[in-house]
Amino acid sequence: MLTNVEHIGIAVRDIAASNALFAKLLNVQPYKSETVEAEGVTTSFFQVNQTKIELLEAINPTSPIAKFLEKKGEGIHHIAFEVDDIRTEMDRLQQEGFTVLNETPKRGADNKLVCFLHPKGTNGVLIELCQEIR
Amino acid sequence: MLTNVEHIGIAVRDIAASNALFAKLLNVQPYKSETVEAEGVTTSFFQVNQTKIELLEAINPTSPIAKFLEKKGEGIHHIAFEVDDIRTEMDRLQQEGFTVLNETPKRGADNKLVCFLHPKGTNGVLIELCQEIR
Repeated sequence: MLTNVEHIGIAVRDIAASNALFAKLLNVQPYKSETVEAEGVTTSFFQVNQTKIELLEAINPTSPIAKFLEKKGEGIHHIAFEVDDIRTEMDRLQQEGFTVLNETPKRGADNKLVCFLHPKGTNGVLIELCQEIR
Repeated sequence: MLTNVEHIGIAVRDIAASNALFAKLLNVQPYKSETVEAEGVTTSFFQVNQTKIELLEAINPTSPIAKFLEKKGEGIHHIAFEVDDIRTEMDRLQQEGFTVLNETPKRGADNKLVCFLHPKGTNGVLIELCQEIR
């Protein structure tokens, strides 16, 4: 089950400047910043009701975010849906014909197990499934 | 106050095919379809907890969605935040330096008054403010 839009990821070039910008927009301060070395990103999170806005800055040139910025510029990078059981949901979606970008769940930001779906199978939308690590 | 991620808008070429695709992805059927002639779009809506996924197909070549598809292809088009008072929020954001794309709220899909912010001022993200028409 996809139970919630857990967060929306936005690729930015300068996370300090974007933190200030989104704090003005959302009228709330980011509640957390976290670097995920394995993904090559620094992130910050804003809470809006039950959904987070996640800003993503690349920390090296091989980061997926660096490549996204180079190709498309700043903007919305992905939508993350909360799932109750990530492995069950990955199985269900693969049976429905979707392609996963990682065959086993990997550790993402914010204490989550995550899996991405290939955007070619989802109308160009990069979709993340995420499950809180208990 | 931006109180909720009300919906995420996704531009698609063939809304019938995408309705079927997103029904599989989200494991729920769209609960509504609506054409907004003034915006040149047909829309459909899926509910995921407190957020909607809105698919948008152009109904004519001058539709903003037709232009978006031509320039960027299918994908996430905008994020819409629910606001309690759209005029107050438009004033606040303009004072904070954001640029509105429409100076007065206009009628959008789903019985809403809407206003868009210029993406040049929001890290490339097209942001909609929306308020339920009471």
